[in-house]
Amino acid sequence: MGIADLGCSSGPNTLSVISEIIDVIYSKCCHLGRPPPELRISLNDLYSNDFNDIFGSLPAFYNRLKEEKGTGLGPCFISGVPGSFYGRLFPSKSLHFVHSSSSLHWLSQVPPGLDSKASIAINKGRIYMSKTSPQSVLDSYFLQFHKDFSQFLKSRSEEVVLGGRMVLSFMGRRSMDPTTEESCHHFELLAHALMSMVSEGLIPEEKVDTFNAPYYAPCAEEVKSEIQKDGSFIMDRLEAFEIDWDGGVDSCNSIETPSSGQRVAKTIRAVVESMMEAHFGSDIMDDLFLRYAKIVDNHLSKTRAKYINLVVSIIRVDKIEG
Amino acid sequence: MGIADLGCSSGPNTLSVISEIIDVIYSKCCHLGRPPPELRISLNDLYSNDFNDIFGSLPAFYNRLKEEKGTGLGPCFISGVPGSFYGRLFPSKSLHFVHSSSSLHWLSQVPPGLDSKASIAINKGRIYMSKTSPQSVLDSYFLQFHKDFSQFLKSRSEEVVLGGRMVLSFMGRRSMDPTTEESCHHFELLAHALMSMVSEGLIPEEKVDTFNAPYYAPCAEEVKSEIQKDGSFIMDRLEAFEIDWDGGVDSCNSIETPSSGQRVAKTIRAVVESMMEAHFGSDIMDDLFLRYAKIVDNHLSKTRAKYINLVVSIIRVDKIEG
Repeated sequence: MGIADLGCSSGPNTLSVISEIIDVIYSKCCHLGRPPPELRISLNDLYSNDFNDIFGSLPAFYNRLKEEKGTGLGPCFISGVPGSFYGRLFPSKSLHFVHSSSSLHWLSQVPPGLDSKASIAINKGRIYMSKTSPQSVLDSYFLQFHKDFSQFLKSRSEEVVLGGRMVLSFMGRRSMDPTTEESCHHFELLAHALMSMVSEGLIPEEKVDTFNAPYYAPCAEEVKSEIQKDGSFIMDRLEAFEIDWDGGVDSCNSIETPSSGQRVAKTIRAVVESMMEAHFGSDIMDDLFLRYAKIVDNHLSKTRAKYINLVVSIIRVDKIEG
Repeated sequence: MGIADLGCSSGPNTLSVISEIIDVIYSKCCHLGRPPPELRISLNDLYSNDFNDIFGSLPAFYNRLKEEKGTGLGPCFISGVPGSFYGRLFPSKSLHFVHSSSSLHWLSQVPPGLDSKASIAINKGRIYMSKTSPQSVLDSYFLQFHKDFSQFLKSRSEEVVLGGRMVLSFMGRRSMDPTTEESCHHFELLAHALMSMVSEGLIPEEKVDTFNAPYYAPCAEEVKSEIQKDGSFIMDRLEAFEIDWDGGVDSCNSIETPSSGQRVAKTIRAVVESMMEAHFGSDIMDDLFLRYAKIVDNHLSKTRAKYINLVVSIIRVDKIEG
């Protein structure tokens, strides 16, 4: 049985996902009175991911599995498969279950015309789609999402066996409007923090004008449409979950406890810092995220901001001409 | 087509082996007028190997492949599989070709009774088998080789398809005597360097007495016997190659050019330093290998020392009861 986790990252969560998948398979086999299948588990992320960190924690992981499953433990082979999931990664018809969490909202690149090499900055003062972005910006973002997501489905359709399943979870939105608050506002406020530094002469304005995040939070209709056009998968389930920006933890006013804004800033920083550093330099990062935390605190004092997480479960079928 | 390189290490050689394997397959396919098969290439080494370094060089590797093979390039998927090859690493019947170079002479552990936890040091003043080692030392080393090599063959026999092939190259010896110079002398001289530091009070003597290298250079008969006992592979070819300690380069007396001894010391240091550091501490390493270089220079002024490299090609067959 071939299993892949796409965009596995590296850290304590990487192997906990795998652990859960194994548990589900084992309990199903136990229920059916069958021995567990031979598991081939592939962990995928970009070439630059810290696979050494994951591999270093595998001996302890295998030992825990042995303890938990005892004599019932079947063969389980874990490998690292580096590369972009917007292209082929695995042999034909080799996967039975594909999982991806918090990765597919990252585009393969900044949409052409919006990257730092573009001759004219058309999304001035913003770093993602915004209510005030020109239509051409929205079009460029949608086009890149369409290219990437269709390429993702095409690649996986060759790798997943008939009847195989993918469970994908990523940031999205409920509204058809791509500039809706629930999908854009965390970037909008980060642009505010950047612009406050521009106004103080800490960052040249053109630096902000030429930065755009390689990100797209689609709505359910856009996802469904791509799946239909590809024709190799049918939708089993699609659900949208609300997630509080600050993880739903009530902030308290103690000096020790970070504010909601600080927690949000820390989360967003963990995700976007590497790409922002490459463009703006590492020197301004501390200042930027301090400002961002304050702006977010102010925003959250007025409203309960939420992200939308889409979870899609699709099944590989004989190709339906769409 | 499943291909594995066992003990791939990390560095410029890691991918050059893979490159050669791909070239051979492509030229064979071209000769037969067939399209190249889908290649699944697994790179294996211990959990602590620097897989990040290998994965970081893969984009350039794939680009070079694209340039070289042009439109004739077929699918090729490279993954990292961490773990010891003295146990299962791959799914059943998933490999068609296995390669391993300069790895199988490393045992899975120091033979029991000879490791630093042993209550009595029975190989005093030496760090490997030696003419003056007691018979029990030779027996312990052979037993560990037997356990490891048979476990290696058993694991691979489950992973390699019928008709699949393994090409294994590792340090060995031509003589039946395990204490013959060509398999032991580089360690013997390293022990001399250590003992010279003991005599100057730089290392406690018991440190040397309790260190033994997890290494075994078998003779052809020992290898053949293990393959026969396992019964899952038949020998296609076995060859022994002589390799000059200093790579066969004539030393010249210029101040700029390192001496033969220095070159040998550098090579041996690259291979054994990490395990010696763990036992002796890193402080003495520079001094140790300076002394070693001088001892080797002196030795090479009197004789042309050689290692023996065994290359074995074996084919997976229906199990023959041995």
